[in-house]
This record gives sequence, C-alpha cells and structure tokens, in this order.
Amino acid sequence: MVQVTVWNEFRHEREDEAVKEQYPDGIHEVLAECLAERGFETRTATLDEPEHGLTEAVLEDTDVLLWWGHAAHDEVEDAIVERVHERVLDGMGLLVLHSAHYSKIFKRLMGTSCSLKWREEGERERLWVVEPSHPIAAGVEEFIELSEAEMYGERFDVPEPETLVFNSWFEGGNVFRSGCCYRRGSGKIFYFRPGHETYPIYRRPEIQQVIANAVRWAAPTEGPEPTYGEREPIEHLD
Amino acid sequence: MVQVTVWNEFRHEREDEAVKEQYPDGIHEVLAECLAERGFETRTATLDEPEHGLTEAVLEDTDVLLWWGHAAHDEVEDAIVERVHERVLDGMGLLVLHSAHYSKIFKRLMGTSCSLKWREEGERERLWVVEPSHPIAAGVEEFIELSEAEMYGERFDVPEPETLVFNSWFEGGNVFRSGCCYRRGSGKIFYFRPGHETYPIYRRPEIQQVIANAVRWAAPTEGPEPTYGEREPIEHLD
Amino acid sequence: MVQVTVWNEFRHEREDEAVKEQYPDGIHEVLAECLAERGFETRTATLDEPEHGLTEAVLEDTDVLLWWGHAAHDEVEDAIVERVHERVLDGMGLLVLHSAHYSKIFKRLMGTSCSLKWREEGERERLWVVEPSHPIAAGVEEFIELSEAEMYGERFDVPEPETLVFNSWFEGGNVFRSGCCYRRGSGKIFYFRPGHETYPIYRRPEIQQVIANAVRWAAPTEGPEPTYGEREPIEHLD
Amino acid sequence: MVQVTVWNEFRHEREDEAVKEQYPDGIHEVLAECLAERGFETRTATLDEPEHGLTEAVLEDTDVLLWWGHAAHDEVEDAIVERVHERVLDGMGLLVLHSAHYSKIFKRLMGTSCSLKWREEGERERLWVVEPSHPIAAGVEEFIELSEAEMYGERFDVPEPETLVFNSWFEGGNVFRSGCCYRRGSGKIFYFRPGHETYPIYRRPEIQQVIANAVRWAAPTEGPEPTYGEREPIEHLD
Repeated sequence: MVQVTVWNEFRHEREDEAVKEQYPDGIHEVLAECLAERGFETRTATLDEPEHGLTEAVLEDTDVLLWWGHAAHDEVEDAIVERVHERVLDGMGLLVLHSAHYSKIFKRLMGTSCSLKWREEGERERLWVVEPSHPIAAGVEEFIELSEAEMYGERFDVPEPETLVFNSWFEGGNVFRSGCCYRRGSGKIFYFRPGHETYPIYRRPEIQQVIANAVRWAAPTEGPEPTYGEREPIEHLD
Repeated sequence: MVQVTVWNEFRHEREDEAVKEQYPDGIHEVLAECLAERGFETRTATLDEPEHGLTEAVLEDTDVLLWWGHAAHDEVEDAIVERVHERVLDGMGLLVLHSAHYSKIFKRLMGTSCSLKWREEGERERLWVVEPSHPIAAGVEEFIELSEAEMYGERFDVPEPETLVFNSWFEGGNVFRSGCCYRRGSGKIFYFRPGHETYPIYRRPEIQQVIANAVRWAAPTEGPEPTYGEREPIEHLD
Repeated sequence: MVQVTVWNEFRHEREDEAVKEQYPDGIHEVLAECLAERGFETRTATLDEPEHGLTEAVLEDTDVLLWWGHAAHDEVEDAIVERVHERVLDGMGLLVLHSAHYSKIFKRLMGTSCSLKWREEGERERLWVVEPSHPIAAGVEEFIELSEAEMYGERFDVPEPETLVFNSWFEGGNVFRSGCCYRRGSGKIFYFRPGHETYPIYRRPEIQQVIANAVRWAAPTEGPEPTYGEREPIEHLD
Repeated sequence: MVQVTVWNEFRHEREDEAVKEQYPDGIHEVLAECLAERGFETRTATLDEPEHGLTEAVLEDTDVLLWWGHAAHDEVEDAIVERVHERVLDGMGLLVLHSAHYSKIFKRLMGTSCSLKWREEGERERLWVVEPSHPIAAGVEEFIELSEAEMYGERFDVPEPETLVFNSWFEGGNVFRSGCCYRRGSGKIFYFRPGHETYPIYRRPEIQQVIANAVRWAAPTEGPEPTYGEREPIEHLD
C-alpha cells in the first residue's frame, strides 16, 4: 500500500479569511482525504510542526511526498530540504504543486531558478493532455477546464521535462507546461500547476484524479539500489 | 487482467536442430508460459498461421504484443504490419525482441533503418541498468550477465529513446543501448536486445522478469482517446 | 555554404485567386528568396516537375530541404518519398512547414499519424519560445504574434520532440507544440507550424528568421558515417 | 569570437611528479592552447587565485567555461559556485571535464549526487559515438580509443541527458554515458568523461576536437532573454 505524506505550508488557511473559507482545515487535509478515499495510506505534515513534520522516521515511511508552499518557502530549513532531497534521490516520489515551483526542494532538484510569469485575475485555464498514454492522464478528458485560475506563463525556467503530460492555455494569452515529469536519482517527480489557495481547485474530481495517478506513477519501484565508489574489474585486464 | 499475444516467426525452431533443442515448442511458447506464470492472460501467434495469427479480433483483444522475428521479416504482409501499426497508435503495447529490431513493424514505428553492428561468437554481455527507478528495472540487479550472447553494437540507428533503461557491454569491445522505451500515438514500445535463438536466454529468470515488467509498463492506460479534425472554437473569437 | 532546396506543392497559388495574391510566384519563391538574402544557396522544386524536382542529383546537392504541401500529399510518389527519406537518414536536414505535418515524408519519419485538430477562422496565434537557448530561437522575442492564423491544436500525434522550441496559444482556446526538433538517422528535422497559404506569414521577418535559424541548425555536420553489419571482435574473446 | 575560460584546480600538477610530467604548466594551459589554436579567445583561471580567478568581470566576458577539478572540490567557495551557476542560467556554456562530475557546480546544476563507480588501473576505454549527427561528434571516427584510462562506470547518478553523444566501453567490464548534453536556464552544459591527470589524454587530437566542438555548441546564442514575474493580460479577460 502506497504511503503518502501531504506537506503544506498551512499559513494562508489560518491567516486569510478567503482561504480559510475554501480550505477550513488546510489544503493538506483536502488532499490527504481525497487520496485516502482512493486507497492510499496518508498522513500530513506542515511547516510549523517540529522539523516541519518531516522527521527521518516520517520520510522513511513515505513513498510519495506532496508539497504545497507559497509565502514561506524561505522558512523551510535547509537541513530539512537536504533530508527530503536525499530521500528523493533514494527513491521517494515527489509531487510539486502549484506555487511550490518556487520551493527550495524543487529548485534544489531542478538546478534552475524555476521562475515564471504570473497573474492573479481569476482567468480561464484549459489544461490540454499532450501525452494521452501517460499513466498520469488516465481517466481524464482531452482537457481539464478551470473557470478561475491564477495564470502561470512561459518561459518556465525548468529543465526540459522527461515527459510533458499537460500543456495549459490561459484566457489572457499565455501558455504553460503545466504537467511535467522528471527523474532525479531513483526518485520520480511530477510538477502539477493547478491549485491556487483562493480557488477550490483541489476539490475538483479531475484534479484529484490526476494527483492520485501521479502518486501511483511516482511511487518507488523495486529496482536495483545503485552502488557507487571504487570497484574491482569484473573482467580480466591485459 | 492484461492480455498478451506472443508473436513468433517460428521457423528456426522447426528447421534448425540446435534451435529446436533450445526451444522445442518455439520461443513463443516459452515466453507465453513465463508470462502466464506471472499472471498474464496469454496467447500466441506465428508467421505461418492465416493472417500470421494476427486477425482484427486477436489484436482487438491484445493489450500487449511481443514480437520475435529474424529470418523472414520480409514475409510479413504489409497489410498485417499496417494493422498492428494502427493498434499500437491506438494504445496497444509492443515489445520488440532481439532480432525484431529489423522487423517491418519496428522500422515502421521508428522511421529509421534500425540497423546495427552484429557478431555471432557467443561472447559475454553485461546489461547495465542505467535508470534504476524505471518500472522495467524492478527486481533486477545492477546488471544482468549473459555468458553467451550474439553481439549487437552501436551505432544503433533508432531515434533517441525516451528512456534508456539498459546499456550493454560486450566482451568483444562494443556497447549497445539494449533496453529502449518509446511512445508512438497512444502506444508504448520497448525494445529489448537479449534473446538469440541458439542461446537459452529466454529461460533466464532475470530476462523473464524484465519482459514481465515491460508488459506491465506497456499495457494501455485509460487516458483520453485523442480526437482529430476540424473543430469549432471553444472561446469566442474577436 | 549551406545548399537549400525549397519544395512546394505549388497548386493553391496557381488555382486559387486569394492564394495567388499572397504568393504570386508560389510560396517556394518567397522562401527561397528570403533564404538567399540570408546567405544560403537556394533552389526550388515543385510537385508537377518530373520526379517532383527531387532527382538523385538535386538531393545529393541539398543540405537542407524545406517541404510545404497541403492538398496533394497523395500525389507525391512513394519512390520519391523513399529517396528523400534515405537522404534524411544520411544527414540531409528537413524543415516541415505547416500543413506538411500530413506529408508522406513527415509521417514516414515520425512513424505516427501526425494528426491534429484544426480550424480556419483567421484567429490570433502567439508562439511562445519555451527553449530560449536553442539556436532556432536566436533573434526572436519572447513570443511571435500572428494576427490571423489557421488553428492547429493538440493532441498533435507525433513522438515527443527531442526539443520543443515553440508552444502556441490560439485565440479560440487551443494550444499546440509548434516548433519541434527531431533527429532521425543522421538527419535533423524541424517541424514549424506557421504558414497557411492565405495569410502572408512567410513574409514576416520573425518567421523568416526562425526558418533561417532552423536551416543552419539542420545542416549536416561532419560526424562519423555510421557503418552497419557483421563485425570482427575488436577485443580478444575468451 | 567565442571567449573561453579554462578553469583548473591546478593542484595535482604542482604537487605530484607524475602529473607534473604530463602537464608541466597545468591541464588548463594545454586546454587553453589547443582551443586558441582552433580560433577561440582563451584565458585561464585556477583555484588558488583570488576568487578562484572567476571574478564577476571574468565571467561576464566568458562565453564558455571549462571546469576541471578533482581533489579540492570542497575548497571552491559557495559564493563563487553561485556566481557561476547564475552565469550558466544566464547563457554561459559549461564544459564539465572528467572528475569535475563531482564538482559543486555540476552537482548544483544537475540536482543529483553525480556519483559513479570508478577504478584506476589504466585500462582500455572506447568511446562510441551514438549520435553521429550531433555537432559535438563532428570530425570524429565511429569511436575514440584510449589505451589507458581511469574507469568510470554506471550507474552514473545524473538526470537523463537531453542528448547522449558518447557511450563508453571499458576493458574491465563496465559501460558509461561519457558525453552528455544538458540545458539549464539559457546555458548549455556538456559533460565529457575523458581526462585523467596521469594520462596524456588532453593531448589527443580527437579529444581536443571534441572539446572544441563542444565549446562551439555550448556558446550562447542570441535568443530572447526570458523575463519573469507579474504580467498584465495580453488578451482581454471576460
């Protein structure tokens, strides 16, 4: 059974009335619940817990980590970022949601600025599936339409994704690579754009479906554990 | 339950004593059996059956097709190749084994010559896993060693694989990209190098494991069925 | 000096008054001229010439071939398609323009249907550069805007491009991967979406700039000519 | 004219007699000289200079930076690593040579451990060209043979390269992806394996040819400078 930890900054929902209305118990609870309903074993962790809720023990028991952050990326301690980074390289899956494009852990894994254009006007977004055979697109229509979304636009400063699953159209004239697959070490990473805190996007069944698909895709497989360092020759040398 | 059809040219095993000894009932039977043991629903089809055993009905019921051919690629009828091609674009997975690199269907899907260097001296091969987190590498050690193999060497004239899972070392001084993932239309394709007819390679548990992994990976997912052609605007045009 | 052959179906311009007005001497002449101005040695070839103007001698002298076709893809003889295909694998660059996504040669090289959604309403298109460091994007702004364009929309049934340079936004609500790089054999291929016959798109300096960049990128380099077939061991075998 | 800075740790050559014999003035001088002979404007920089020789002014004037380090990666100051990192994202090319796979800057750009297997026995290496049409392979034969090389073996913990140009065979039974292209931000990166300090590998004309090719490939192009941050809508919102 895949074990999922949903990490959330969990500040907006406590400090901002509009957000509290959307997500009274926090974005993490909505995400954890929808994943539990789909058969995953879930727990949550938030910024203001000790070690941000991401102790060695928690990470050890996590197959896939979801990460949502926005206003307090800088408050995430570097030591915890390194711990998460090591676990990803070691095989833990990572889902990077919406404004977490700017999280320390995503920038650490990508090696780039992860910058983009943005605008908060509640415009229409249409996420087109460009790779319909990818498991992350299972159960989805040809596009997902969001009537009100924050805009994220290209250039998105990330390495070219190993697979681009979703490609977004925005009413205001922009496009965005909004569903991007990566592999780093033995860990699989999926960046998924939707999910602003003031729109009830994580309650949408299609969005929940994509997230559940991505968790399944990112879960570790039982591949060989790579070993490194000095090695004797396997074959006889002249 | 994933439905697998194992297609085999099935000539060597009837005409050549050495091959008959290795695979008395044909390569297809060994492959079908090892997949059945791993929980797949399997059937076989061979060149000399009517329509090469690949009727519309058979293909309709096939989630993943395995293809082994060597000496009679040219005898595969173009109409059947087109039929298989359409099914792949429509979502059927395809495993292309060993000398099937030169099959009509693989060349049709790759758009290249699929040529390579080769040598039949029974030399050692070591297939190194270069992407340990890929599901096709599950349950495999850091490398698979074959004590006697036909050599296939670079330049392998195929498009750069979407993921390279195995990279082969040969005793005689060559290397080869020996486990290559592709996506064409809604179909997933895996080229896997091992498997010459005079070596009992398909009886090796690690090889069977990789093939079973690849079947699981290549099985169709329930993504959107893409539609094409003229379309009304979704948004109002100025 | 890079030698370019511009191939054009050249039917619309002779049969349709609106197209004749845009391109009185044919699309090929406008393209050849703009490339000549940028220092390329150019010639043209059209469908109704003997061998479609693509004799062995012409192809032998061609470093990069541009291909524009629309209504008469089926009239291109298979033998000529095979000849062009071989030259591409052998190193000749190929630029596939607009409706040539459906040409025999592009489908032959891609191995897929190359289908897409389309609409001819003269809507706005914005081609966003997603890979600004690619040489094909040199001298271009963050996006190219076309005030009137035919729409091409996803799902575009092609293999995932090796590099995606342009990503298009359309007024009517669609997106499209509109600048796609591929490598097949020793040949480089660039698919570039803009260029409908009834809009004067090929007279736009930015579009001409992209095409010239792509010609430079696709021109053959002096890499090793790969050899294939049976080979002696390079190393001593046990 | 492309401006190249060759950075070298430059410790082995001063401290170890065997290395001093190979490279009396340092690896950087041999590399700078061979590039100057091929028409590049070159300078050098070394670890023990102030700011490791990589001042803002030097980097500003550098189109492509070569990096060779081995025993003192940790002595490179983080602030300088960040400076180089920013310049790469901003468009400067970077060639990462041999043991620099473990440099701070390469790990920073890759986001992975960059670990590998290794062995120093002076064994044979054969670098096979797997992508002959890539400009980095220009002027090279089907393989480059090194009679005595340090072994680097898979699993090499890097993201899958955007293009794999060279694939190495080692006498002792290992393989290695030895010529790997990446793009990060607007910068192009090439990792090239050969070059141990006790073998005169950088004096080999084929190796010099590859390095010169890679400098040309990695040099910045005049693409759009991406802009980021909040943006007004381009299109009218409902």
